[in-house]
Amino acid sequence: MMSKGLLIVVSGPSGCGKGTILAEILKDEKFFYSISATTRNARPGEVDGVNYHFLTKDKFEELIENDGMLEYASYCDNYYGTPRKPVEDMLEQGKHVILEIEVQGAMKIKEKCPEAKFIFILPPSLKELRRRLNKRGTESDDVIEKRLNEATGEIKQAYKYDYALVNGELSIAVDDLLAIIRAEELNLKNSNNIIDEVLENA
Amino acid sequence: MMSKGLLIVVSGPSGCGKGTILAEILKDEKFFYSISATTRNARPGEVDGVNYHFLTKDKFEELIENDGMLEYASYCDNYYGTPRKPVEDMLEQGKHVILEIEVQGAMKIKEKCPEAKFIFILPPSLKELRRRLNKRGTESDDVIEKRLNEATGEIKQAYKYDYALVNGELSIAVDDLLAIIRAEELNLKNSNNIIDEVLENA
Repeated sequence: MMSKGLLIVVSGPSGCGKGTILAEILKDEKFFYSISATTRNARPGEVDGVNYHFLTKDKFEELIENDGMLEYASYCDNYYGTPRKPVEDMLEQGKHVILEIEVQGAMKIKEKCPEAKFIFILPPSLKELRRRLNKRGTESDDVIEKRLNEATGEIKQAYKYDYALVNGELSIAVDDLLAIIRAEELNLKNSNNIIDEVLENA
Repeated sequence: MMSKGLLIVVSGPSGCGKGTILAEILKDEKFFYSISATTRNARPGEVDGVNYHFLTKDKFEELIENDGMLEYASYCDNYYGTPRKPVEDMLEQGKHVILEIEVQGAMKIKEKCPEAKFIFILPPSLKELRRRLNKRGTESDDVIEKRLNEATGEIKQAYKYDYALVNGELSIAVDDLLAIIRAEELNLKNSNNIIDEVLENA
């Protein structure tokens, strides 16, 4: 039915629950989660190829030079980015590739891959986001205020995305994400050989 | 969440099972099935406002004149068409309006309502469509061949639609149609006030 997989870019502010939603849908092997590359050192417990692809600065810059990064940015003297090859390989194999990435990176992907689909995960409200961040209990009030400010800034960019869904109740958010992906599979832009298949089998 | 409903145009050849699929989704009151108007006489058992809106020729032509028809055609000296007002009233009330209509009518709707979404229901194959038409047992071989030719012509137009789904198993086809509609609800083109709603509730 489909030759290539879909490139699905997912963003949302810290505390919106996108990790939990993605963990649910990634149980299905038709999805592939793209792992970022970085030049920073692995922290204790982090595994190369699981948390990140840990690369040397030389290797990362070589990839940039050879258009081997779909997007990258530098932050605190380290590079972070999305290697192109695993994404393209998986799409060719018909897998749907999930890119979990912040807004600026997503907009860079949009330039290089206009066929990608952009989905923003919203908290039900800023009030609820504050409650969730407080509940974690790991951060000071100052840090929580900073996160809420960042979240507000990101949510204001959500109109640049194709879809937005609210993560109020997890199972509904998961169903909504799966509905979007199913609809994209059925979109004739992504599956127009289906018509020929029906006509061929006379 | 949504101010206006979605206009959903559904086509598919005779025997593809679109009536059965639509009957399933119309159990939900958020959908409204648009009833066609015609100038032909009601047949025994047909009820005005249920099977068709039965109109006089004068009334129908008056509606045409006043841009009161989203589309119309004449067939065997009678008019058939889609009255604009009930469609617009229901969309305003936030209901999703289902227009079940053949390909040429659908393309006229596309000109007048570019925001409508166009969904084509496919049989699994022409072979299966032939089997289904034979199974009805109500039509001669000649009529079945004529229907298959018509079906082939219609399916060849399916690439003009936004989405195509195969009605192999009813429950899957119903879920696919509901996934498309849910995705359209979540599409920011149709629901961009959702971002403001999240930001307002700080």
